[in-house]
This record gives sequence, C-alpha cells and structure tokens, in this order.
Amino acid sequence: MQAEIITIGDEILIGQIVDTNSAFIGKELNKIGVSVYQITSIQDDAAHILKAIAEAEANADIIILTGGLGPTKDDITKHTITEYFNDSLIQNDDVLKHIEYLFAKYISTPISDVNRQQALVPSKATVLTNRFGTAPGMLIEKDEKVFVSLPGVPYEMRSLIQYEVVPYIQKKYNRPHIIHKTLMTYGLGESAIAQRIEVFEDGLPKEIKLAYLPNLGKVRLRLSAKSFDKERIESEINRLSNELIAYVEDIFVGFEDESSMEALIGDLLVKENSTLAVAESCTGGNISKMISSIPGASKYFVGSVVSYSEQVKINELDVPKELILEHTVVSAEVARSMALGIQKRYNVEYAIGVTGNAGPTKDKTDASVGQVFIAIAYPGGVLEENFNFGQPREKVIQRASVKALELLKKSILKKS
Amino acid sequence: MQAEIITIGDEILIGQIVDTNSAFIGKELNKIGVSVYQITSIQDDAAHILKAIAEAEANADIIILTGGLGPTKDDITKHTITEYFNDSLIQNDDVLKHIEYLFAKYISTPISDVNRQQALVPSKATVLTNRFGTAPGMLIEKDEKVFVSLPGVPYEMRSLIQYEVVPYIQKKYNRPHIIHKTLMTYGLGESAIAQRIEVFEDGLPKEIKLAYLPNLGKVRLRLSAKSFDKERIESEINRLSNELIAYVEDIFVGFEDESSMEALIGDLLVKENSTLAVAESCTGGNISKMISSIPGASKYFVGSVVSYSEQVKINELDVPKELILEHTVVSAEVARSMALGIQKRYNVEYAIGVTGNAGPTKDKTDASVGQVFIAIAYPGGVLEENFNFGQPREKVIQRASVKALELLKKSILKKS
Repeated sequence: MQAEIITIGDEILIGQIVDTNSAFIGKELNKIGVSVYQITSIQDDAAHILKAIAEAEANADIIILTGGLGPTKDDITKHTITEYFNDSLIQNDDVLKHIEYLFAKYISTPISDVNRQQALVPSKATVLTNRFGTAPGMLIEKDEKVFVSLPGVPYEMRSLIQYEVVPYIQKKYNRPHIIHKTLMTYGLGESAIAQRIEVFEDGLPKEIKLAYLPNLGKVRLRLSAKSFDKERIESEINRLSNELIAYVEDIFVGFEDESSMEALIGDLLVKENSTLAVAESCTGGNISKMISSIPGASKYFVGSVVSYSEQVKINELDVPKELILEHTVVSAEVARSMALGIQKRYNVEYAIGVTGNAGPTKDKTDASVGQVFIAIAYPGGVLEENFNFGQPREKVIQRASVKALELLKKSILKKS
Repeated sequence: MQAEIITIGDEILIGQIVDTNSAFIGKELNKIGVSVYQITSIQDDAAHILKAIAEAEANADIIILTGGLGPTKDDITKHTITEYFNDSLIQNDDVLKHIEYLFAKYISTPISDVNRQQALVPSKATVLTNRFGTAPGMLIEKDEKVFVSLPGVPYEMRSLIQYEVVPYIQKKYNRPHIIHKTLMTYGLGESAIAQRIEVFEDGLPKEIKLAYLPNLGKVRLRLSAKSFDKERIESEINRLSNELIAYVEDIFVGFEDESSMEALIGDLLVKENSTLAVAESCTGGNISKMISSIPGASKYFVGSVVSYSEQVKINELDVPKELILEHTVVSAEVARSMALGIQKRYNVEYAIGVTGNAGPTKDKTDASVGQVFIAIAYPGGVLEENFNFGQPREKVIQRASVKALELLKKSILKKS
C-alpha cells in the first residue's frame, strides 16, 4: 500500500508559500497504514501534471493531487485530469446547488458563470463534498488504483482528507498497521546518542527502523514499524522503546505527542476543572492565540493581557513600578509578578507570565536580543526559567511560546 | 536554466515535519534567475535516492539535495551520492579541523569516530563550508550540470545556499532575470476579481503570467516574467501592474514583500504618532500577535486584552453587564463597548474591539457559528461592521483578524 502526493502550483516552486498540505496528508495516511512513497511539487503546467500523474501511477496505489482547482484561468488541474483519463466534463447538480448555497449565504458578489463551472466534473469521477469551499474534491478509480484531486486551500483539503478520503481508503483496501513512536531527548548530540545506543541499534529486528531527528538542542529518536499483525508490532515497539529509554534515561524528556501541546494542556485543564490566564509581553499575543486555537478553549481559558508597554504592566497586571525600576522590565522578577498579577486579577488557577526582548534591536533595557523570562503561577507556587533564544524575532516569539506551554504543562503535571 | 530540489528524509513523508527548505531554496534561486522545475521529497532509501537523482538529471541543470548528511546510520545520502558518481570517499582536512573546532568550542561530549567520518567527502566533490554544523555541503560538477548536497537542518542549509551555492551559480551560469510582482487585495473573491479583470487578463502578452492566490479573505495577484532583457521586463511588469491596480483600486492594499497590512498600519501610526490597543474575544490573541510581529511595534502598540470570559469583559474592559444581558455577548454593542473600554483604559488613540463565535459549536449565545462583530474606536468616532465568516474555526479567526486590521487601516486613513 503506497501513496504518492502531488502538490500543484507555481507558488510552491517559487517559494511564495510553504507546502504544508503534504505533511498533513502524509500523517493522516500513515495513521491508516498507508505509506507515502514520494511527494512531488510541480508547476501549473498541463504537460508537467500529466507526466507527474503517469509517474506516480507507476509507483503507487493511491495518488493524491492538491491544488489548481480554483475558478480562475491559472487553475488547470481539473481539465488536465480529464484529459489524462480521456474523459469529459459533466455538470454535477449537487455541487452546483452547494455552490449556489455558499454564494447566497456567505458571498456578497453575485454568482457568475466561472463559479458555476466549478460544478463541472469528469464523468468518471466520484464527487467528494467540499463543505468549506466551492471546488469539489474528485475521486477516480482505475483498475486497482485510485486518483484523488483536492483543492489546495489547507482547511478545505484537510476536511476532505478526514471526512472523505480516509474513510474511502479504509473501506476499499486491506491495510497493514504503521506505528511510529518517538522519544524526545534533550542535552546530547545525535552522534553521542548513536554511540551510546550502538548495541541496541545493531540488535534491532529488520522490521523496525530507527531514525534520529536533531533540532536545536533536542534529538528525537523515532522507532517505526509496519505490519498486518497490529498487536505484535505494537508490543514489539513498546518493548523496544522501553529498552531504548533505559539507554537514554538521563536525557529522555517524554514521547512526542500525537496531539499538540495546546490540545494536551486543554485536556489536562478540563480534567482538573482549572482555569488559565496569560500575561504576555514579547510574545505579543501568540501564546493566547495558540491556546485559543483549540475548539472548546473557552471552558478553561479566561483571557489574557498583552502588556507591550510598561504602563499596562503596572496598571493592568499590578506589577509594582519599583520592581521594574529595580530589575528592569525584562527580568525574572517582572515575569513572576506578571503571572501572579493576572492569576489574582483574573481569578484563575494557572497563569503564564512572559517578558523578554524579541529583537531585532536592544531596546532601552539591558536584556540582550533573544533573552526571555517565563514564569508559571500554579496553585502550589511559581515555576520560573529564563532562556536566550537568539535571533530572529520570529524564532524568539515561537520558541518562547512553545517553552511557556511546555512549562505550563510541567506545572500542571507537577501539581497533580 | 532549471533546477530541481530533492529533499530526503522519512520524517517528511510521514508528516513528522513540514519541509520548509524547498520554499527557501526556490525563492533564493528565483532571485538569481533560476526556475525550479520540480521539488521531490523522498525516503532515506538508497535505491530511491539514486532514482530521484537520475530523474532530476534528465530535467534540470542544477540539482540540489538536502538531508541525510548526519553522523548516524540512518543518514545515507553521502554514500549514495558517492555511488551515483562511481566515486570514493576521501578525508578533507579542512572539514576535519572545523569539526574538531566545533566540538572543542560548543559540544560537551568528546569527539568520536563517527564525528570524524563527517570529514569524508567524495573525491570529485568541492566542499562547501558549513559554518553552523559538522556536515559539510558538497558540490559535484558533471558535464554542464551541477549537483549540490546540503544538510537538512534549516539554518545550516540556509547559510550554505546564501554564502556558497548562490554565488557559485551566479559565477558559473549566464542567467535570465525572473521578476514577480504580487498585488495584495482584500475583500473580493478570486472569481469576482477574475471577472472584473477579464479584459486585462486576456490582453496579457504571452511572456507574462498571471496567478491568483486566494487565502482567507485576501487574494494575491502575481504577475511573473522571465527574460534576459532585465530592463524591458521590469518596465513591462511595472506598466502592467499599474494597469491592473486601476482595475482593483478599491480593494488593493499594497504589494507583497513590500509590506503586510500589519506593517502598513505600523507605518501609518508611527507617522501620526498615535497608539493602538486591542480588545479581542473570538480571535483569541491573533490580532495582537499579527500587530506585534512587526519589529518596532512597541512604538505604537500599547497592549491588549483577550477577554475570553464575560467576567474579563466586564472587569477589564468596562463593558456594562446590562449591555451583555440586553444584547448578548456577541453583538455590535459589546464590540463597540470593548473598543471604547480599552481605548479609554489604555489611553490610546485607536482601539479594536472584536467579539464573535469562532465555532465549532453554538455556545450559549444566539450568534451563529462564524458571526463576528468588529468595532474600531478612533479619535473621530467608532467604525463598526459585522460579518459571517462561516467555518471552520481557524478560518473565522484568520478572516476576522484580517478584517479588523483592514477596518483599522480605513479608520486611520479616514481620520487623516
């Protein structure tokens, strides 16, 4: 069971956008036992699309294309697929109705002929309903292979994969199980780890693959296996990951999570019926944005203050002015005071306080660019750490946000 | 002049990471007149790597590989390239010295044989110095083609592209000029734009390509051209983009890269020496995050309140409780009161107030999923609008944020 993903669009090849669609599709397919053999990104060019589909057909059982289904002239995927299958376009009435519905409900401009033409699909195709957009997904079977064409807009594509494509594959194919288990380690380089676990690695059974994924101070160790006997490989992977942990116990920090850190924190807070507030400075709202991206976040997320100015820190977070004068605004003391200030004021169990300098320039404080202080106020006390995330600005904001959530998680687990 | 990019690593195909390297490389190559024909992501598998290199050699002049150069056993790119060129590995003394230097300076564990083996390179390769890591870049010429192998760690790869690969290509090849100019528009769908500019699009010279890039409320229109006559296509693209602007004047907000909406607003606020605060609800911090992503935002951005709970709206934004009871929390009245509340409290000229229901469920209010009210308090009054952004949650948050910034810009321009 192999799949190939073809993402179509000049904007990918000129680097105007990063293709995030294929990673999503790869992950979803892996969950249901389908390996991705190759991802190919190509131009909005009929000859190139035809060539890529033919090559993918030679390698894979499932071929998934994204992109090029819009209503404008640069969108040529649908016509090219129709050509590939020697097919012709016919109008699908359900799709037309759906397009008319979307226009009536959400779009202020009148519906036009080009919009209606999105209801034309190859006669051999099964339509996959796109609940969030006007371009339908299309699925064409040929012998034992299946070709799927999806819009490139990420949230439209994601919904089609989850609610249409995955159930279809699950029904049609007998699939093996793919299991990945990823150990996260912190503090040792990949070659030092490799040396340490050499005996373990050399002794691994053929069907188990080990990969090293180094990234900025952490190395992730991924064990992967694929088999029709789910129970056997599951217990095999669990046995081996326990064996591996024994080798790296001092640097092991946990398993990579299936769900995001934000979702995990949400689950933990809901479970213990606690609430959360955030006092941000250099992260500028990014932590709040991450927390509130989870559906149902309003159950535990009360709100936050982005205190970009000192005055807001003083007035809205009750940070004493003398504290700022004594320690400067980028300091452990101010981070702590921000966390405790909002914890009290917003009447929550948990509160994050973050202050730092995201750069690019040094500001009036003495803090170097990249310096960030994070404090977590929790029912049992305050957890504090400070970091230097270097440059650029965007990286400082991102890493500080992730670290803050990591520390929050730690403090929730510590408490319970 | 065509290039192909091959990114190597199982972690890409199983969706454990998003490949951001190819977008970076694509962009850098475009700047120096090299088009990327295709991006291919493949597994850490020798046969697959050999096949991908051979296919790329048939299509492109420049083949750039990233990934698989680490010191551990799952890294096989270097050996596979050596095999592809019927070459053998020899030790490069400069690389060895550099590795020893990095270990002495930054790494606590002692240097080992696997680390030293990173100094082995194919005898036919020119070494590209990796200033930030132990794996060297390698460049092999074959007839008129060139093969480059780079580590997959993004900041190592980026530095090698900028300081080694780009200068090499500039020196070796006579290249055309590639020009992209992207107009950003807000507020009209791509098909409505297409209809409006049909005459313009049909009249475009053959060498100019027009692409539509829709994304959550904005549509980018990209004009692209490639030619050895730089001056001619530059003036042609400028002429055509001015012509295009005339068609979309009411929805045109600027050129991409020049500056985003956030940056534009920043410029306007700095110019009139005004300050800004934000009261967010359903957008959960996203508007603040966008505003604060601009370096120097602290000059005008004072801070914000994310009021996820009613209590925070009442206590921290001075929204009267009766107002909420009378109109519900998702209403024009509450959005206005939030904006005016934070404007006064944070003592700013401009304030955004946003309340809505991002979904996925209906909440206790009567507001349907996707319903959002936006108010902008400015020195001359309050600007208000309401929207239904549909689903899913992520789209509602994004579009509401973009709309809020758009209205803010409008109110700044209106005032001045």
